[in-house]
Amino acid sequence: MTDFAATRALFDLPPGVAYLDGNSLGPLPRAAVARMERRMREEWGGMLIGGWNKAGWMAQPRSLGDRIGRLIGAEPGHVVLGDTLSIKVFQALAACLAMRPDRRVVLSDLGNFPSDLYMAEGLAGMLGRGHALRTPEPEAVEAAIGEDVAVLMLTEVDYRTGRRHDMARLTRKAHEAGALVVWDLAHSAGALPVDVAGGGADFAVGCTYKFLNGGPGAPAFIYVAPRHADGAVPALSGWLGHRAPFAFEPSYRPGEGIERMRVGTPPVLAMAALEAAMDVWDGVDMEDLRRESLRLGDRFIAGVERACPELVLATPREHERRGSQVSFRHPEGYAVMQALIARGVVGDFRAPDILRFGITPLYVGEAEIDRAVEALAEVMAERLWDRAEYRKRAAVT
Amino acid sequence: MTDFAATRALFDLPPGVAYLDGNSLGPLPRAAVARMERRMREEWGGMLIGGWNKAGWMAQPRSLGDRIGRLIGAEPGHVVLGDTLSIKVFQALAACLAMRPDRRVVLSDLGNFPSDLYMAEGLAGMLGRGHALRTPEPEAVEAAIGEDVAVLMLTEVDYRTGRRHDMARLTRKAHEAGALVVWDLAHSAGALPVDVAGGGADFAVGCTYKFLNGGPGAPAFIYVAPRHADGAVPALSGWLGHRAPFAFEPSYRPGEGIERMRVGTPPVLAMAALEAAMDVWDGVDMEDLRRESLRLGDRFIAGVERACPELVLATPREHERRGSQVSFRHPEGYAVMQALIARGVVGDFRAPDILRFGITPLYVGEAEIDRAVEALAEVMAERLWDRAEYRKRAAVT
Repeated sequence: MTDFAATRALFDLPPGVAYLDGNSLGPLPRAAVARMERRMREEWGGMLIGGWNKAGWMAQPRSLGDRIGRLIGAEPGHVVLGDTLSIKVFQALAACLAMRPDRRVVLSDLGNFPSDLYMAEGLAGMLGRGHALRTPEPEAVEAAIGEDVAVLMLTEVDYRTGRRHDMARLTRKAHEAGALVVWDLAHSAGALPVDVAGGGADFAVGCTYKFLNGGPGAPAFIYVAPRHADGAVPALSGWLGHRAPFAFEPSYRPGEGIERMRVGTPPVLAMAALEAAMDVWDGVDMEDLRRESLRLGDRFIAGVERACPELVLATPREHERRGSQVSFRHPEGYAVMQALIARGVVGDFRAPDILRFGITPLYVGEAEIDRAVEALAEVMAERLWDRAEYRKRAAVT
Repeated sequence: MTDFAATRALFDLPPGVAYLDGNSLGPLPRAAVARMERRMREEWGGMLIGGWNKAGWMAQPRSLGDRIGRLIGAEPGHVVLGDTLSIKVFQALAACLAMRPDRRVVLSDLGNFPSDLYMAEGLAGMLGRGHALRTPEPEAVEAAIGEDVAVLMLTEVDYRTGRRHDMARLTRKAHEAGALVVWDLAHSAGALPVDVAGGGADFAVGCTYKFLNGGPGAPAFIYVAPRHADGAVPALSGWLGHRAPFAFEPSYRPGEGIERMRVGTPPVLAMAALEAAMDVWDGVDMEDLRRESLRLGDRFIAGVERACPELVLATPREHERRGSQVSFRHPEGYAVMQALIARGVVGDFRAPDILRFGITPLYVGEAEIDRAVEALAEVMAERLWDRAEYRKRAAVT
């Protein structure tokens, strides 16, 4: 059994705060500061350019990729770290469109994170071959899978509602229609057990700063199914994805398998923090995590529904249809969240009316859940959200 | 006058090492470790998600962009930080090709860094509209500028030879032919005075881990000339380049000016190290730096040519035709460099036969130059490069 009191002790959380926003930015793993200092002083400072070999910086996008791969059910050697999630989405999409040259539809859904949709739009615009991006409501995606779909691109867990798609089922449907599938695991990796290999995903992408706790702006990752690894065309053909980067050949030759999804110089400093974050996962069983996440989520839902009848649950009640976040709707959601944060309970707000609460058993337990319910009850009962101070919008919401 | 003894004291260099490889990876600025610790403990750890507003993380790609902009002669507000140099090259090229839809040639040169050429190849392949990448010898570029050229993409200072292109002249020629110009400043930013505005560059890109000392894998930057800022089409249309990122609209609308060149979440931890690195530049006058760089470069060339007749100068002798690196050729260059590094003089090697020495007055003075000459003389006189231990190739060269 995973010892969640032990994992909690591995994080440096500010006193007095119930942090329910790990679905947006995970907290600081205690070991990360020392790890970073070592990387900076001993490796960068002490080894200088020699760090690439002596400290193994060049290999870390692959080794960290494999550590993430274990959490998402990837075959070893098929995940690599780098860039941002938007860039990884672009790479996966571009590779898929190249494999389905006669099809013109990118199918996603309105619940997908906007950047995924924007990247698809940008790609389609650049290609200029009439690709269309279709975004039905999430519930209507399955029915929209047709023979014209080149690629189905979905985020498994909806960033606003926490609604979870059925990866295996939708992937199977898409494959039956001859389409490829890209899964965005931004709200899945480290949130629940994922099985990209078993689910048949062609590509999967994700970020490491949410449930994986890699730090603000931590790098993204990409998975390419073994059957595509040596066939995928890298549209962003950077030197570190070249078969022989240090031969400095004049023409591009794609690297073996997942190597070709590397682009530029790896983010060496950011990887030090991520390494410390991934150490926490070594002691975690994903089934235990899921059980605890659902238990705490149920407790939160029950508490809020009892204490705050004005809040409307936006997350599906059924376990198999949700991720590891619970969302409620309220027309004054922004101000409600500000009032809550002022009371030391940190969730976040997503337009137009969603209050999000990340359920992260690594460092959140019953005490935080109960405190969040109490604070929310107080905010609603006393209409604290109606105060001017909570209605003033910050730049980044 | 810039006080180079004072700037030198701002770096943490290993004792006994003459570091002449700042053209590949700059050394650790002393203040960077404390700055990073503050970012991790006080900002990430203490503010959690609130760091985006309270610590100003979201604005830093622009503020750091402007600090770099000062060193490259950019108009304020027209440089933004993010991603890797290869990604920034892709953005600039894609935007240029969209502005010259009737032309099919990307003109570069054989001396360009391979990743720039690879990104152009990948882009051309993806577009599938018959774009050709032409790469004459650097000296033949000017004559190759014709009416079919959509974009001239050059690295100002050659990564192997240190040969410098005439930015203003080539840009003018290209503009006369109706082409756009992208300048890669990887070996220019922080190496010599650059004037992208005065030189007429349409786009410029660069990295921050070489002469700017931002740390291994530090983010890249992109400059877009004001005349293109609101017209450039962002092919990599990520959410942070959207006009209203936090409105989470379903369709992409490009942000104002340089904002549209942002893609995904900024590299917050890496930016902390870069901030400390940029502080060093506050006290530096680029003309002083250039004078000192050329003086030290001349001293190095004279010393090596006197002591090591087997080494052939690969860098132009004329001041206006070189950057801030001096290179020599030797058929056993790899082993020569390993023998040199074993003696505490760190330069690097680039296939097939180039020994590179970065001249970086911020932390390199006459003592290091003289020591490098002496060590090189010893390696050559005693044929130390012929030892087996120096011939064994490392993974990253």
